[in-house]
Amino acid sequence: MRATTIHAPFDVRLSEVPDPVIVDPTDAVIKIVAGCICGSDLWSYRGENKIKPGSRIGHEYVGIVEEVGADVRTVKPGDFVVTPFVASDGTCPNCLAGYQSVCQHIVGIGSDRADGGQGEYAKVPYADGTLVATPEVPDDKLIPSLLTLSDVMGTGWHAARSARVKAGDTVVVVGDGAVGLCGVLAAVRMGAEKVVALSRHESRQKLAKSFGATHIIAERGDDAKTAVLELTDGVGADAVLECVGTDQSFRTAFDIARAGATVGFVGVPHGVEVPIRRMFSKNVGLAGGVAPVRAYLPELMTAVLAGEIEPGRVFDQQLPLAEVAEGYLAMHDRRAIKTLLWP
Amino acid sequence: MRATTIHAPFDVRLSEVPDPVIVDPTDAVIKIVAGCICGSDLWSYRGENKIKPGSRIGHEYVGIVEEVGADVRTVKPGDFVVTPFVASDGTCPNCLAGYQSVCQHIVGIGSDRADGGQGEYAKVPYADGTLVATPEVPDDKLIPSLLTLSDVMGTGWHAARSARVKAGDTVVVVGDGAVGLCGVLAAVRMGAEKVVALSRHESRQKLAKSFGATHIIAERGDDAKTAVLELTDGVGADAVLECVGTDQSFRTAFDIARAGATVGFVGVPHGVEVPIRRMFSKNVGLAGGVAPVRAYLPELMTAVLAGEIEPGRVFDQQLPLAEVAEGYLAMHDRRAIKTLLWP
Repeated sequence: MRATTIHAPFDVRLSEVPDPVIVDPTDAVIKIVAGCICGSDLWSYRGENKIKPGSRIGHEYVGIVEEVGADVRTVKPGDFVVTPFVASDGTCPNCLAGYQSVCQHIVGIGSDRADGGQGEYAKVPYADGTLVATPEVPDDKLIPSLLTLSDVMGTGWHAARSARVKAGDTVVVVGDGAVGLCGVLAAVRMGAEKVVALSRHESRQKLAKSFGATHIIAERGDDAKTAVLELTDGVGADAVLECVGTDQSFRTAFDIARAGATVGFVGVPHGVEVPIRRMFSKNVGLAGGVAPVRAYLPELMTAVLAGEIEPGRVFDQQLPLAEVAEGYLAMHDRRAIKTLLWP
Repeated sequence: MRATTIHAPFDVRLSEVPDPVIVDPTDAVIKIVAGCICGSDLWSYRGENKIKPGSRIGHEYVGIVEEVGADVRTVKPGDFVVTPFVASDGTCPNCLAGYQSVCQHIVGIGSDRADGGQGEYAKVPYADGTLVATPEVPDDKLIPSLLTLSDVMGTGWHAARSARVKAGDTVVVVGDGAVGLCGVLAAVRMGAEKVVALSRHESRQKLAKSFGATHIIAERGDDAKTAVLELTDGVGADAVLECVGTDQSFRTAFDIARAGATVGFVGVPHGVEVPIRRMFSKNVGLAGGVAPVRAYLPELMTAVLAGEIEPGRVFDQQLPLAEVAEGYLAMHDRRAIKTLLWP
């Protein structure tokens, strides 16, 4: 079968790899219906994260269950499933507490132990603790939105949950990538009154607005702070969603948070120095981390199937799997917000 | 009148200072009934914080209202009041949101604009937004406990609130100073099932136990982590109260927090590098800061007056004001947990 492999910075290829087989009785093999490229894949693509040349990449996919191990109970061949970006046993104390992304037996999708999602098939461990099936095989037009539940929509949701967004809030979303845009959608759905997207890119501004953002701020740094304070009578935002992960974006997030607010963070932190003295003096909290998308999947799947949210609109590029290299380049060049790959 | 002044490291004195007078119509003058020394005063005492030689010090006191400005409505001469360690206008958006410690017009007690509390009298600004009066002048034996509501008990309470302690939790308190001990009391009152005090000092261990701590861990660093993990089946604490403020204590706090827990921090951070990658991978949050003790005062005052909590037991040394220098030395030497001063 064919799957995407990464060999060096800016070198991803569609390669011939062995077909996956069930090894453990809790494994499942999925025929991938759609996969996609994540902003965090770009860290490896650009050479900013260390890679093992030739390894598989991609941790977001949906598909049809092809085969299951003897112990798998909750999914069966023929089911359409969403695979979260990490596999979790579903039974450890962290999973039971709703933090499957900190499972004591966590396995990253797209690692040595769980095939990547930019290919034709994938084996996933801990099928019962990981996969969530739709009640029936969904209409093709729902597939992009279901695919976002494997990562970006659940991650944006986690940012909003971590920031404790509540009805009537003024929420600022830092970051206009797919996660930030899903964060806008999440904040709107949680009843925020004003949802402010920080974005300088017209296509992303448009999508943010169509997701329910009430305000767009194109400025950055101190100017963004000034704009948010103007919008909030000098008080600051009730909740801030940090969806980037850089020191600059963290500084902005804390600058615009009001006293008692929480910054919900989901961007993998790179070189971030947390402004602890500012947190202390302003009583601004910080919460979040690797999103337990498995915990949010049932609720968000119901919303997608009911047509209440359409996070799949973050995919502004769809390519056949054979053109995966172009997908990476388009996202790296910021020509695409997010690229869906059809095997 | 006489009040404590600080002149250089390890040089505090009882000095003759001018009597306070009402200047603004929102001022009140208080005849101090009891004041005390705070762990944070020791930063100045040791020369670790910059001071202005000859300035007044001390930000915790209770007393009888002597005189009020023309606009003061909620307290009157003769009332017994608790003064929080910062004055707040009570009307700005941050005050209204319950974060009086981030008041837009905040004035620190023991600053140029609000007299310190280790003296005979003190002028306090924003009397209506700051002071809380007891229904009647309380019995002398309640005074130490009421005095803790000006800072340490409200601060320990804030650590527990920020850490989102809930019934049934396993809570670890890092720090066995007066604030940490009050944090134990707070966690117990919030219904925590196990309350673990990290302490190496016998007198503090005893007090922690009498406040309801179910476990004492005398180890530090990695050994403390091991001990907490043993106590929690390897999972970690549901909530951690960070009541010290050093890099080492923060590291311990994050080491022992379970996935999804929050570290509530109230110790002024000194040289703390927040382990953001660990927070991210474990989904451990951080919340807290300068405690809005004014927000908690009514509830905690009711509990003290009803005899339900006795935080005043943190005072293991009581001295006449004239011996203030010995009080500082005793706390610096850790011969006293906390020293009460009777003018």
